[in-house]
Amino acid sequence: MHGVRDEADQAAFVGGIVGDMLKKLINDPFDAVDELLEGFVGAHGDIVAAPAPRVIARREKATSKVGLVIGGGSGHEPSFLGYVGSGVADAAAIGNVFAAPGADICLDAIRAASSGRGVLLAYGNYAGDVLNFDLAGELAELEGITCRTVRGTDDVASAPPDDRGHRRGIAGLFFLFKIAGAAAERGDDLEAVARIAEHANEMSATIGVALAPCEVPGAGRPTFELGPQDMEIGMGIHGEAGLQRGRLEQADAVVDLMLDAILADQAARGLSPGEVALLVNGLGATAYLDLYIVYRAARRRLESEGWTISRSFVGEYVTSLEMAGTSISILRLDDELRGLLDAPARTARLGG
Amino acid sequence: MHGVRDEADQAAFVGGIVGDMLKKLINDPFDAVDELLEGFVGAHGDIVAAPAPRVIARREKATSKVGLVIGGGSGHEPSFLGYVGSGVADAAAIGNVFAAPGADICLDAIRAASSGRGVLLAYGNYAGDVLNFDLAGELAELEGITCRTVRGTDDVASAPPDDRGHRRGIAGLFFLFKIAGAAAERGDDLEAVARIAEHANEMSATIGVALAPCEVPGAGRPTFELGPQDMEIGMGIHGEAGLQRGRLEQADAVVDLMLDAILADQAARGLSPGEVALLVNGLGATAYLDLYIVYRAARRRLESEGWTISRSFVGEYVTSLEMAGTSISILRLDDELRGLLDAPARTARLGG
Repeated sequence: MHGVRDEADQAAFVGGIVGDMLKKLINDPFDAVDELLEGFVGAHGDIVAAPAPRVIARREKATSKVGLVIGGGSGHEPSFLGYVGSGVADAAAIGNVFAAPGADICLDAIRAASSGRGVLLAYGNYAGDVLNFDLAGELAELEGITCRTVRGTDDVASAPPDDRGHRRGIAGLFFLFKIAGAAAERGDDLEAVARIAEHANEMSATIGVALAPCEVPGAGRPTFELGPQDMEIGMGIHGEAGLQRGRLEQADAVVDLMLDAILADQAARGLSPGEVALLVNGLGATAYLDLYIVYRAARRRLESEGWTISRSFVGEYVTSLEMAGTSISILRLDDELRGLLDAPARTARLGG
Repeated sequence: MHGVRDEADQAAFVGGIVGDMLKKLINDPFDAVDELLEGFVGAHGDIVAAPAPRVIARREKATSKVGLVIGGGSGHEPSFLGYVGSGVADAAAIGNVFAAPGADICLDAIRAASSGRGVLLAYGNYAGDVLNFDLAGELAELEGITCRTVRGTDDVASAPPDDRGHRRGIAGLFFLFKIAGAAAERGDDLEAVARIAEHANEMSATIGVALAPCEVPGAGRPTFELGPQDMEIGMGIHGEAGLQRGRLEQADAVVDLMLDAILADQAARGLSPGEVALLVNGLGATAYLDLYIVYRAARRRLESEGWTISRSFVGEYVTSLEMAGTSISILRLDDELRGLLDAPARTARLGG
């Protein structure tokens, strides 16, 4: 990527630590996820427990409601474990860093979430997650647990509007989890929870911008390379290629480029300006100062084009370790979605 | 600091952006704080308003309670503005990045917080903040507003145990604000709020570790230099010199060094192991994965030495822009402090 990186590569590799940018506070990289989970359950034992390896579930299992299982690779904290608790998810299946949880883990999470009314599986649309959650769902059906699946596909940069089923799920997953969890909590049946979750996914759209990479613990190299003055619009949360690379501009100009993509997508789908929740998500290393400046720019742009921002979220919701950058998400709101978004929740990340 | 930094310095300076590590999503650096505040009030207008320039106050002013004013330089978000709301602060005085708010701003914040029962000023012990809050307090007294002051001095690295009055305030400020705010909210009078706030400050202790610097917008250089494999234990939240510099080790070893300092300080003060709240605070760029691994190590060490961890906080509470690193804080708990820490709050950062 740059000079110091190459020197560091040749000079020293100490405990997964290479270079100035990617210093980590970890122990053995292979223990990182399990140590994360031990720490998480230790810190939030009033809310969660670990009923099986790599499964985080509500400490007190819900009785007689649709279960919500979420999950995916680690490294996106506070997703997914930070959204386990009353009002959101019943259990999360936790994979290695940037890797899908195994089907056995997904199945254990389904069992932990099941209280007799079926289980919704909600996760980002990535091949490994699809494979393992699908298999786990089939195994759960054999045990008499009815499962439905909704895959998050909010990343407008990852496939064109007429191929939305192939899009990836990024920060809009937060909206999907919150809406599905609130619907399950109020007592909706499985079909209804799946319907509103799918609706939330359809109504959400996200685009990211990456400024600097992260490093998977133990990988010894960053997830991507990017010039010292460059940014990449539309990059995914694991470093997947985005829409365009260019020189980093001032925040207002970057936000305009990002919203151009979201608004073009809305137009291509025949969706006109309306009421939305606006989420500005930090990818890891970007300061709150920057995130609120991005929020300001996004709000101004959207309002100038006739949109109404009625709910706002600014902070780290779906991260990529210590990646620098942000993403902007909208969730188009109607009365039902607004009510579910506002519904009380108590997880490690929400309502604490 | 390293090769690419020097090259970038010579090659290009674009909109405050230099080098790969310190890319920012801002506009004109001189507008950054005002744009932050516009974004913050836009996002959290249900909780806060800006009754005067650089003042963030509760949207609905409290009636007949002790007012709590907090504040300091920007760049530490979610401190200070993220702790304005019911159960915590009535108003925050906001300075430029890493610079104390002017006395006029502090006075406006005091006026916004005053509802007739006096105002407590609580902030970190830095010369500029002391000067300006003291002056503002004197001016407020002339207007008939009784003021008391409690300065956060939790940073054990910043002065020896017998000179605690000269210590700086860092992440333990969160505990100070939360406790003082809860005492004011339950109706304590000014002397009582000041007493319990001072007690919370006395019972809290923090030490930080820095891995990589941040950059003040427009400064054109990082706040400090640190070798590509080094860390500095005890560094302050503006890059103030710490206790020791050395090679970055694995998380458990780093945490041991950090807790050595806190535990030696406790022993020097004649304080034996007891019940504490434990806060692992991210300085900006450090991933949740790392923070929970640090939490795990801190918890294990403290428990092995006879401490009880009864409340836990992991995340970004008092940051230093995009600095990489963390801090570990304890708050020794008694029944009163535990109750105040648990009391409900609704701010942009808490109870949302």
